Amino acid sequence: MLILMISISMENKEVKLLGLWSSPFPVRVIWALKLKGIEYEYIEEKDLMQNKSPLLLQSNPVLKKVPVLIHGGKPICESLNILEYIDEVWSHNRLLPEDPYEKAVVRFWAKFAEEKLVESARTMLTSEGEELEKEVKQLEEALDILEKEMKDLKKKFFGGESIGYLDLVLAWSVLWLEIIEELSCGKKISDTHRYPTFNRWMEDVKNINIIKENLPSKDQLTVYLLYVRNLALASKANN
Amino acid sequence: MLILMISISMENKEVKLLGLWSSPFPVRVIWALKLKGIEYEYIEEKDLMQNKSPLLLQSNPVLKKVPVLIHGGKPICESLNILEYIDEVWSHNRLLPEDPYEKAVVRFWAKFAEEKLVESARTMLTSEGEELEKEVKQLEEALDILEKEMKDLKKKFFGGESIGYLDLVLAWSVLWLEIIEELSCGKKISDTHRYPTFNRWMEDVKNINIIKENLPSKDQLTVYLLYVRNLALASKANN
Repeated sequence: MLILMISISMENKEVKLLGLWSSPFPVRVIWALKLKGIEYEYIEEKDLMQNKSPLLLQSNPVLKKVPVLIHGGKPICESLNILEYIDEVWSHNRLLPEDPYEKAVVRFWAKFAEEKLVESARTMLTSEGEELEKEVKQLEEALDILEKEMKDLKKKFFGGESIGYLDLVLAWSVLWLEIIEELSCGKKISDTHRYPTFNRWMEDVKNINIIKENLPSKDQLTVYLLYVRNLALASKANN
Repeated sequence: MLILMISISMENKEVKLLGLWSSPFPVRVIWALKLKGIEYEYIEEKDLMQNKSPLLLQSNPVLKKVPVLIHGGKPICESLNILEYIDEVWSHNRLLPEDPYEKAVVRFWAKFAEEKLVESARTMLTSEGEELEKEVKQLEEALDILEKEMKDLKKKFFGGESIGYLDLVLAWSVLWLEIIEELSCGKKISDTHRYPTFNRWMEDVKNINIIKENLPSKDQLTVYLLYVRNLALASKANN
């Protein structure tokens, strides 16, 4: 009884999220909070490049990055870490499987997607020529592996028949990856016949209300990412 | 009752570990299994560079790396992921805190240590000159942050008064980091007066029987890491 009371009081503590509209990481936390129906206050980090807010510096002094979830005054950093925390504190509408082996499989693929897809997209956005070509090849190979895994799974989502942790981890690709591919290569890479299952998954994810309603506008994000790209290329050219 | 029976039968299934004596990652799993008193069969991956075993290729087809824990025929990959799995299946002698917030803090620092310390050590081992200097600076800054955190914690171990998950994640530093520092810089970096708390922690960790009895010999590892270093430097010089 006491445990239940503690758990209820923990769930009901104030939730704040420090985010940034143009980043693909805080949006994962927004999706998770909305899927669970958790009330929260969203605080936009207005000038992450030049002038970080005192609340951010105080809540994430080591990395100084968003997202930060502040729950009952306690900060939790790193988006994947936050998703696990949310799923443990608010255990309804489970995002992660409860079975330890299934959970380990899901965590393995989340790490794979972070290390391969996110890193490739990050490099592609700020490179051209040979460096870009090399990175595109790596992205294609990572997508080959993901395509095979998704095909073998034979499920609508990575989370099963409804959306789960791994879908939230990967769902940035439906907007950010597409824009980065177009800006850097002038063509789509992930959205081709080479990846039929990944494409079907992207379509299914895009059709989920909570996902699409919380994505930034494609036009605005394109303008912003083009600005970041041009700045990075100019800086490389000057070095 | 049924749940208890399933859980017991899961715990008792056969455990195998694919490892490699010279790697700092499988040893984390060995430490965790020994701390929990779990019986297992250790299988050394004899020629990871040239000739990976069929069992490794079949159990970890994506990364083709050790460690792999095979539990009841099912493979789990990536050392941090394996530690979490072990702690969930064999829940006695907890490695991770049970409180979701404490757990999130521990996971944050594990990721930090992997991304900063492990990556710096990896680069230091295979670099010299300016590249080495830059990486040493990054290592020192990461150790500054860790020193502050450990000092503020005021606990004997990262896991509290007894050894836990974060200690196992960091404990490679008591042997591998020291050797890499000596081979690349000709001097100790982590083991100086700049990091008194980290050093006290290293001494405490080295004195735990399960840790020290399962470390490779310093002489053997030094010879091996020197070979890796010379090979990498020669390959860079030829490019």
